[in-house]
Amino acid sequence: MGIFELAISRRSVRSFSSESVSLEDVLGALEVAAQAPSGANRQPWRFLILTDPDIRLRVREACEKGEKDFYDSVDGDFRDWLLAQGLSWRKPFLEEAPLLVVVLMDEDAPYARESVWVAVGFLQLALQERSLSTLTYTPSDTCLPLRELDVPGGFKLEAILPIGFPSDDEPKMPKRSLGKIAFLNTWENSIVRSKKAAL
Amino acid sequence: MGIFELAISRRSVRSFSSESVSLEDVLGALEVAAQAPSGANRQPWRFLILTDPDIRLRVREACEKGEKDFYDSVDGDFRDWLLAQGLSWRKPFLEEAPLLVVVLMDEDAPYARESVWVAVGFLQLALQERSLSTLTYTPSDTCLPLRELDVPGGFKLEAILPIGFPSDDEPKMPKRSLGKIAFLNTWENSIVRSKKAAL
Repeated sequence: MGIFELAISRRSVRSFSSESVSLEDVLGALEVAAQAPSGANRQPWRFLILTDPDIRLRVREACEKGEKDFYDSVDGDFRDWLLAQGLSWRKPFLEEAPLLVVVLMDEDAPYARESVWVAVGFLQLALQERSLSTLTYTPSDTCLPLRELDVPGGFKLEAILPIGFPSDDEPKMPKRSLGKIAFLNTWENSIVRSKKAAL
Repeated sequence: MGIFELAISRRSVRSFSSESVSLEDVLGALEVAAQAPSGANRQPWRFLILTDPDIRLRVREACEKGEKDFYDSVDGDFRDWLLAQGLSWRKPFLEEAPLLVVVLMDEDAPYARESVWVAVGFLQLALQERSLSTLTYTPSDTCLPLRELDVPGGFKLEAILPIGFPSDDEPKMPKRSLGKIAFLNTWENSIVRSKKAAL
C-alpha cells in the first residue's frame, strides 16, 4: 500500500476495543520513527511504552486532573469546538487502549519539538501500515502524568499515543483540498489555478 | 516498498543536481501531508512552492543574511558541531534545488507547530516514496525570507524544503538503536532488556 493510501485511510481514534496489540508491531513502528531526521541529528525522542494496567490507570487519573482544570479555563470558539466534538475532560482511552506510547523530548536539543513531531508523523503512518489505530493526545498539563513515571529531568512529555483497534466507526475528519493550501511562486496563485493556466 | 524501507533509505540532502523535478510528484507528496491529523482539525499548514529562479535567489539571499547573523552569534558545542558538519551561513541549496517548498503555519491554530511538523513528517516520507530528496531547512531568521514572499499576516515560516536529486553520495546519519530510546513501563526497563527477560 502506498503512503497516500495509508495517509487517507488513517483517522484519529478515541474509542478502543480491548483486543490486545502486538508489542512487536509497535516496536516495528518505533523503528520507523527512529529513522526521522532531527536538528543536529540529536534524535531528541524517547518512547515509554506502557502496557501495565496500573500504570495506565495512574496516567489516566493524572491526565484527567489536568484536563478538568483546562476545561474549566477554556472558552470561546475552541470551547465550542471541543463540545461540538463531544470532547470532555474524560480520557477513557488512556485506560481502554491496551498500550500507550508516551512521547518524550530532550528539551536541550536544537529544534527539539520540530524533530519529535516529525518522528510522530513517521510513527503514525507506520502504525497505520500495521493496521493499528491511535490518537495524538496532548495532555493539557504535561507535568502531571510525568510525575507518575520515572522519567529523568531534562525530558518533557510531548504526547501520549493510545494504540489499539477502534471500537467505533467514526469517519475521518474532512481535509482541505490542495487548491486551498498550496500555492505556486506567490500566495495569489493557488496551485489549482496555476495548473489550469499551464494547460 | 514498506515505510521502514523508505524511512531507513532516506537521508537529508544538501547538494542538489540541476535535474528538474516533476511538479505532479511534489503535489502528490503534498496530498499526503494534507491528510495529517492536526489540533482541532485546523490543518494549520500552507505550502508555497517556489520554482521561479528569481524568487529562489531572493529567498536564498534573505536566508543567508539571517544565517550570517546567526553564525556570528552561536558558540559552544553547537558551533563545534556545525563546523564539524561542514555547515556554514551559505545555503546554496536554496538556489540549486529546482524547487522549494516553503512550509507556513497558521499561528492561531491550537497545537499549530506540532501539527505542521507531523505533516512535514508525512511529506518527507511521501517525497522519498517518489525518489525525491530534501532537507528540512529551518532558517535562523524566519522573517527575512517571508518578506520576499506575499504571505498574509498570521502565517509563520516553519521550514523551507529544497526538493530535487542529490549531487553527492553522503551516507545517512547514524541513528540510535531502539534499545537506547524505547522503554517498557518504566524508564529503567530498556525495551531490549525487557524483551530478553520475557524469553
